[in-house]
Amino acid sequence: MIKVSIVGATGYAGVELLRLLCGHGGVEIKHLVSKSFAGQRLSEIYSNFSGKYDFVLSDLDIDEIVRDSDVVFTALPHGASQEVITKLYEKGVKIIDFSGDFRYDDPEVYEKWYEVPHTNPELLKKAVYGLCELHRDKIKNADLVGNPGCYTTCSILASAPLLKNGLIDEDSIIIDAKSGVSGAGRSTNLSNSFCERTENMKAYKIATHRHTSEIEQELSKFASKDIMVSFTPHLIPLKRGILATVYANLKKDVTDEDIYNIYKEFYKNEYFVRVYEPGQLPETNHVAGSNFIDIGFKVDKRLKRVVITAVIDNIVKGAAGQALQNMNIMFGLEETTGLDKPGFYL
Amino acid sequence: MIKVSIVGATGYAGVELLRLLCGHGGVEIKHLVSKSFAGQRLSEIYSNFSGKYDFVLSDLDIDEIVRDSDVVFTALPHGASQEVITKLYEKGVKIIDFSGDFRYDDPEVYEKWYEVPHTNPELLKKAVYGLCELHRDKIKNADLVGNPGCYTTCSILASAPLLKNGLIDEDSIIIDAKSGVSGAGRSTNLSNSFCERTENMKAYKIATHRHTSEIEQELSKFASKDIMVSFTPHLIPLKRGILATVYANLKKDVTDEDIYNIYKEFYKNEYFVRVYEPGQLPETNHVAGSNFIDIGFKVDKRLKRVVITAVIDNIVKGAAGQALQNMNIMFGLEETTGLDKPGFYL
Amino acid sequence: MIKVSIVGATGYAGVELLRLLCGHGGVEIKHLVSKSFAGQRLSEIYSNFSGKYDFVLSDLDIDEIVRDSDVVFTALPHGASQEVITKLYEKGVKIIDFSGDFRYDDPEVYEKWYEVPHTNPELLKKAVYGLCELHRDKIKNADLVGNPGCYTTCSILASAPLLKNGLIDEDSIIIDAKSGVSGAGRSTNLSNSFCERTENMKAYKIATHRHTSEIEQELSKFASKDIMVSFTPHLIPLKRGILATVYANLKKDVTDEDIYNIYKEFYKNEYFVRVYEPGQLPETNHVAGSNFIDIGFKVDKRLKRVVITAVIDNIVKGAAGQALQNMNIMFGLEETTGLDKPGFYL
Amino acid sequence: MIKVSIVGATGYAGVELLRLLCGHGGVEIKHLVSKSFAGQRLSEIYSNFSGKYDFVLSDLDIDEIVRDSDVVFTALPHGASQEVITKLYEKGVKIIDFSGDFRYDDPEVYEKWYEVPHTNPELLKKAVYGLCELHRDKIKNADLVGNPGCYTTCSILASAPLLKNGLIDEDSIIIDAKSGVSGAGRSTNLSNSFCERTENMKAYKIATHRHTSEIEQELSKFASKDIMVSFTPHLIPLKRGILATVYANLKKDVTDEDIYNIYKEFYKNEYFVRVYEPGQLPETNHVAGSNFIDIGFKVDKRLKRVVITAVIDNIVKGAAGQALQNMNIMFGLEETTGLDKPGFYL
Repeated sequence: MIKVSIVGATGYAGVELLRLLCGHGGVEIKHLVSKSFAGQRLSEIYSNFSGKYDFVLSDLDIDEIVRDSDVVFTALPHGASQEVITKLYEKGVKIIDFSGDFRYDDPEVYEKWYEVPHTNPELLKKAVYGLCELHRDKIKNADLVGNPGCYTTCSILASAPLLKNGLIDEDSIIIDAKSGVSGAGRSTNLSNSFCERTENMKAYKIATHRHTSEIEQELSKFASKDIMVSFTPHLIPLKRGILATVYANLKKDVTDEDIYNIYKEFYKNEYFVRVYEPGQLPETNHVAGSNFIDIGFKVDKRLKRVVITAVIDNIVKGAAGQALQNMNIMFGLEETTGLDKPGFYL
Repeated sequence: MIKVSIVGATGYAGVELLRLLCGHGGVEIKHLVSKSFAGQRLSEIYSNFSGKYDFVLSDLDIDEIVRDSDVVFTALPHGASQEVITKLYEKGVKIIDFSGDFRYDDPEVYEKWYEVPHTNPELLKKAVYGLCELHRDKIKNADLVGNPGCYTTCSILASAPLLKNGLIDEDSIIIDAKSGVSGAGRSTNLSNSFCERTENMKAYKIATHRHTSEIEQELSKFASKDIMVSFTPHLIPLKRGILATVYANLKKDVTDEDIYNIYKEFYKNEYFVRVYEPGQLPETNHVAGSNFIDIGFKVDKRLKRVVITAVIDNIVKGAAGQALQNMNIMFGLEETTGLDKPGFYL
Repeated sequence: MIKVSIVGATGYAGVELLRLLCGHGGVEIKHLVSKSFAGQRLSEIYSNFSGKYDFVLSDLDIDEIVRDSDVVFTALPHGASQEVITKLYEKGVKIIDFSGDFRYDDPEVYEKWYEVPHTNPELLKKAVYGLCELHRDKIKNADLVGNPGCYTTCSILASAPLLKNGLIDEDSIIIDAKSGVSGAGRSTNLSNSFCERTENMKAYKIATHRHTSEIEQELSKFASKDIMVSFTPHLIPLKRGILATVYANLKKDVTDEDIYNIYKEFYKNEYFVRVYEPGQLPETNHVAGSNFIDIGFKVDKRLKRVVITAVIDNIVKGAAGQALQNMNIMFGLEETTGLDKPGFYL
Repeated sequence: MIKVSIVGATGYAGVELLRLLCGHGGVEIKHLVSKSFAGQRLSEIYSNFSGKYDFVLSDLDIDEIVRDSDVVFTALPHGASQEVITKLYEKGVKIIDFSGDFRYDDPEVYEKWYEVPHTNPELLKKAVYGLCELHRDKIKNADLVGNPGCYTTCSILASAPLLKNGLIDEDSIIIDAKSGVSGAGRSTNLSNSFCERTENMKAYKIATHRHTSEIEQELSKFASKDIMVSFTPHLIPLKRGILATVYANLKKDVTDEDIYNIYKEFYKNEYFVRVYEPGQLPETNHVAGSNFIDIGFKVDKRLKRVVITAVIDNIVKGAAGQALQNMNIMFGLEETTGLDKPGFYL
């Protein structure tokens, strides 16, 4: 049994991770740290955990956590995350981090987009970017994994095969992404109150959203140069789900069938990536509650452009599910353990 | 491994059952019968099943089903259900039925409320009413279980302890029930289209809903006489969830603490019933996606009345989950197998 | 032109009143007071007002308001409302108040349910309860109107004809009310955030909600004695709309046709009350965005009980619309001015 | 008073037009034609019209309609619309058509995208494309107006100033559009049922949606050549609202301030177009229930690309509201009559 602790257990990502861990079978929950609710039972905040799977929440005690845990998931705001992780790492425990703090190859990129200094660039060097389908080999031996962002996971997996196969103009990528509201976390922000958000939608942070930099870092690895992408996030009145619509100009004459074959080949060993046949397009309820990413596409011959649409559950494949997938890889378990089931649909 | 088939597999209850069966561990899916989609893959209708858990849908072949199955779940409209079940039963297979056809002690009650003749009253006598918490002993040895309705499961479990303990005027029970839209099944009914149903609510079938008769049949067993209840269903703009608010006049002076103790005692061995402490009230997202029923209450001293509120997921504890719970009981498995995990919350 | 000011203009009730005033034709907006946003343009908070109907928000200046206004609408929290209204009233201006502070015949009832002292019981005596259909004559000459609560408006109008005609056991009234989330105001409360509220429902404040006392005060006037009612509010995932389901035991043998005639007669002169024919039941989207209350019913002969269902838009007939209706009455205008149009449906 | 009839009155666009006409003040409703509901009262289908604004629905009687009406709104499926309009036109009455049948300059474009022959190309030549802000002068004297599509209105008004001012690469326009479900009409389509649509989103008809051709026709008029655009529609779980996100490559170095000035200048006389200051972005609830289009934008200097976001209410500015605006223009009324009020917000 892998001994697991979560720091920041009562946010949406933390509690979803816990839900998934309850169905994993190979883990033992040790400490659930919640600054806001230390001393309370989890079921007082999330009544769905009432009963057999209830836990007591605790304060942050680094020594105790390190002593009792094989792996710690940290789900803290960026900045705060660096501090805690530095301490955990020094004492020797594997860490999977949900924040943006350990996702970057270059601390300068982090500092530019997050507008704060990185306090531990040495540790950043040792961290592995946890996009499982693309960095599996490094994750296997990692001690610290920067779990990818939700928009980024969806956008990168949707786009990588196009770049890898040299199909598109590398400067033409536009990603129009739509997210459910849980992506904003468990927040009392007025603009995310029910009456302001239901029956409403908007774009936000155009050209400035932090996930842009993460997407660019990873996609550049499939390109012949450092590339930049247009990224526009939108807020949509649903809870779970991201839909990314990716546009790119084709350099070659390809058919839907060609694209299909290229994606099938690229993801041929990937359980969690489902490529749709030409004519089919994914919807977010196909993946809600699951760790899958579903990908469809359409070649627009008139414009010599390809459009990819990809969907994930933002708090599963976009957060807690991928974190668990990372844990499975790091500990040599079957990668799909606790994650292989179909989603909710309803 | 228990060999399982489902007849009517592509309705919401059927497909939810399948989702739960995928996480059960002790079953093998044999036949998934769908009149509308025979020959297609399940994933063509429900893309969430794409991949490892995909299945091919088939036509109804009674002989083949009986030969290959230990248990058959039938999720057909009432009337149609009787026909198929009569044939299945004769050939010797255990059956769990989602329709109203085998829920009644008395065929006349069925005929009055369903306004069709019962074509197999002999078989009806052998059927067991599958409200697990109340009829566990009979279910153990049953060959045919009539799986309870969604409103009824919630209403009966919410009310039974009051009657059992002689606390209330038996003629004073009023049940005001609110349901999500999935209770209406996978339907193209205009009034259940998105634009007609979102941002809208209504009462319907006041004093005439069929589930009234099922509630009365079961609650009468806890009363000193045959009782009748007011039952009003409402349609609410959400997918999963029933909230039943039960009103009854108290015959005795009791406190919230008394009610709490009575419910805790009544359900002391029940994993799936969670009784809330005084001052706490359940919400449907506490149980969404799970087989739990959560029950809260409030004594109104001014009026000498008690108000109970209970919530379930209508397609889990109100349909597919309870059906699986019944299967576990019938086959001597741990009753919570495949059903013990916390729900979605989000 | 009637000169109008609003104190507390940027809450949901205030801004809805403003929306309705824009279509009234006989008013001139003078001051819009908003403590939080004084100095800003309304459109900075509510972009729908951008353009011709934009206004500048101001601080509270009692003298200026009184000098410039014929009538002031106050939409402040209870307690705060008393203070401001005392000052406004002394200087001589007509007032329509949205809070609970001036709705009661007896300050003790207020103090018991609101758990704060009433600081101006003398003024309370002069206030008129602004349920237009029932107190029109007094409202005509009122200087201070306590605009009714949302649940109360719906519950009282749904129930009054039963009591007036001596049809029901006066101790048997149970009101099960369901409200959209805008009833909670523009709030940053976590439990009203989108992710906590969508796909969720709950009962709350059972037997203790303040509107209970208002309902009892008014319904007692139609009974032979002071009556008490069970009142249970529920929160439902939609924005606009209240549905009240009223249960009462019949003292006489009546038919649906009888009830229909009694309600038609009771409301024969009421533009805003629409009584449904037997067999029809109202839905909240029939009244959304309008000042109507739609009422349906069903006699349950088996149980000798009647069930009434009534729907309103909680921020129109339950707040801003009725306030405007009160203004029309107080100033001798046609009562339906600015309010007679059909609602949104969609 | 302008005498008005509607053919196809009980679809969502027809009934929204009727709602707007009730507040117009200068019209008299003559005939409301509904094939499905002829002989019934409108309130039987849309209870919000119960009372003073109720009407009786009738069968199609061309002669009667022409005799009694100054203008006829036709809200029929394409193809069916041509037939009826040909007859109406011959008898001499002004017509505003909601279908795609009379929106095209060239019948071949219609035939290519709608995949049916145009049966009256002569009449098509006389029709005027009713995008009011762009074709006001022609509309003034038109006898037949092809009222624009919902996606098209939003996309064209969002993009035209960029092309007009030669700011962008004319081959680089990508429009990612998101629509509420009412855009699909009042339909019993399973995929638009509540349970399939809520908590779900998808792209559909990528590169093949008919509105693409309408957008291209109009935008080409502002370009130096016939242009093509990428257009991707998405279905979002809300009722009213379209959000179009437009991407284009800049040919010049411009700032947000430059774009703001260009849009303000372009729309300086347009009541219904609200251009947002740099840093502000529109949301669909800013325009819900109103005839406004709100436009925001962001220059992405890194990529030398501009992103425009525009929102409308798809059944008001995208259908019924613009139709009424067209009527006002055709009859020499103040263009904003019945349309100038702020939207719902809530």
